[in-house]
Amino acid sequence: MRAAVLLVSGGLDSATVLAIARDQGYMCHAVSFDYGQRHRHELKAAVSVCSAAGIASHRTVILDPTPFSGSALTDGGDVPMDRSEDAMGSGIPDTYVPARNLVFLSYALGIAEGLGSSDIFIGVNAIDYSGYPDCRGEFIESFQETANLATRSGVDAGSIRIHAPLLEWTKAQIITRGQELGVEYGLTTSCYAPAESGAPCTRCDACRLRAIGFEQAGVEDPLRRRYS
Amino acid sequence: MRAAVLLVSGGLDSATVLAIARDQGYMCHAVSFDYGQRHRHELKAAVSVCSAAGIASHRTVILDPTPFSGSALTDGGDVPMDRSEDAMGSGIPDTYVPARNLVFLSYALGIAEGLGSSDIFIGVNAIDYSGYPDCRGEFIESFQETANLATRSGVDAGSIRIHAPLLEWTKAQIITRGQELGVEYGLTTSCYAPAESGAPCTRCDACRLRAIGFEQAGVEDPLRRRYS
Repeated sequence: MRAAVLLVSGGLDSATVLAIARDQGYMCHAVSFDYGQRHRHELKAAVSVCSAAGIASHRTVILDPTPFSGSALTDGGDVPMDRSEDAMGSGIPDTYVPARNLVFLSYALGIAEGLGSSDIFIGVNAIDYSGYPDCRGEFIESFQETANLATRSGVDAGSIRIHAPLLEWTKAQIITRGQELGVEYGLTTSCYAPAESGAPCTRCDACRLRAIGFEQAGVEDPLRRRYS
Repeated sequence: MRAAVLLVSGGLDSATVLAIARDQGYMCHAVSFDYGQRHRHELKAAVSVCSAAGIASHRTVILDPTPFSGSALTDGGDVPMDRSEDAMGSGIPDTYVPARNLVFLSYALGIAEGLGSSDIFIGVNAIDYSGYPDCRGEFIESFQETANLATRSGVDAGSIRIHAPLLEWTKAQIITRGQELGVEYGLTTSCYAPAESGAPCTRCDACRLRAIGFEQAGVEDPLRRRYS
């Protein structure tokens, strides 16, 4: 059984990626990052998602938050609320976090090399209004090339692969596939500004995109039942 | 004055890079990493080097050491001693650390973006027996490309530059240039297995390459006086 390292945030995308990787027969080692995000609630969700999936290992890595400052998700102003679909879809959002996926993937690569694994999974998604530069296919391809130049395993075999299975999927497609694979979406969280209880705000971009996704997939979001 | 972020290890290469960047007129922000290295002594040297240089800021970032395990520099066996020049020059050394420069540069990139800086300096060196994949020009070029795809500043201006001024220099050339710029090499450390006092072992690859460099530069290593 081949081992893979997966970035798991606690959100619905990475929970679906976890199910996809398991379905492809990988032994899954998950890693989550505490990078000073305000919605640290997601780290508890990541633990729940990984426990429910019954994977090989899950590690939460605490990162010095300095590089990640200045974002609306850390210490740089308020999370935008009640934005129109047009506004959500234009430009790089205030919730952009400097170098986030680059640091996460680099870390995952080191962990993978220690495990003798050449496969890393990430739940980035380039559509559904995402203006994040580090969620695009060009970035993922370029990182894969750099990873094969940076490491012993890359230089020896050139076989490091960054899997981004959701890259071109809509949120509705992601949810539909996750349902087929038995993902428990009630354990995931998406909200950038949840209440103390974990209840979603329903107004931030992440909540709105999640709601649109479930609506388009024709499925009721189990989180609604949980917090209603 | 343009700001730059510099990786400073406490060794002589990065101390020289710091002097070069200052000489080029950059306002220098240094970053050092505690990644579980056995020769943590170098972090004290990094503080001394940065203080002596009088730079804008210096930060030591503590990293979760998991990805960096399995190296002779962390927890994976003994540091090789008394190797011949041929042996030091062949293959990837046991002191290779998984994904190290990739994680360090990714972190530095996040810090740079927060400072509004597009310039990152690293003291990698592809000659003098270095078999590290992440010290080669191909890796640095590829990382620069990835960095410009990963970040807001890269996408907006495409102007992120990874400076590796020592890439093609011999150790002797590095020392000669550093002397011209007034680098205090007595504050630096190179040894992978120093004594409690910080005294170099004189037998590991790093000590041997340092000694050859000073000899070829025709300069006495001030560290010798310090620990004699």
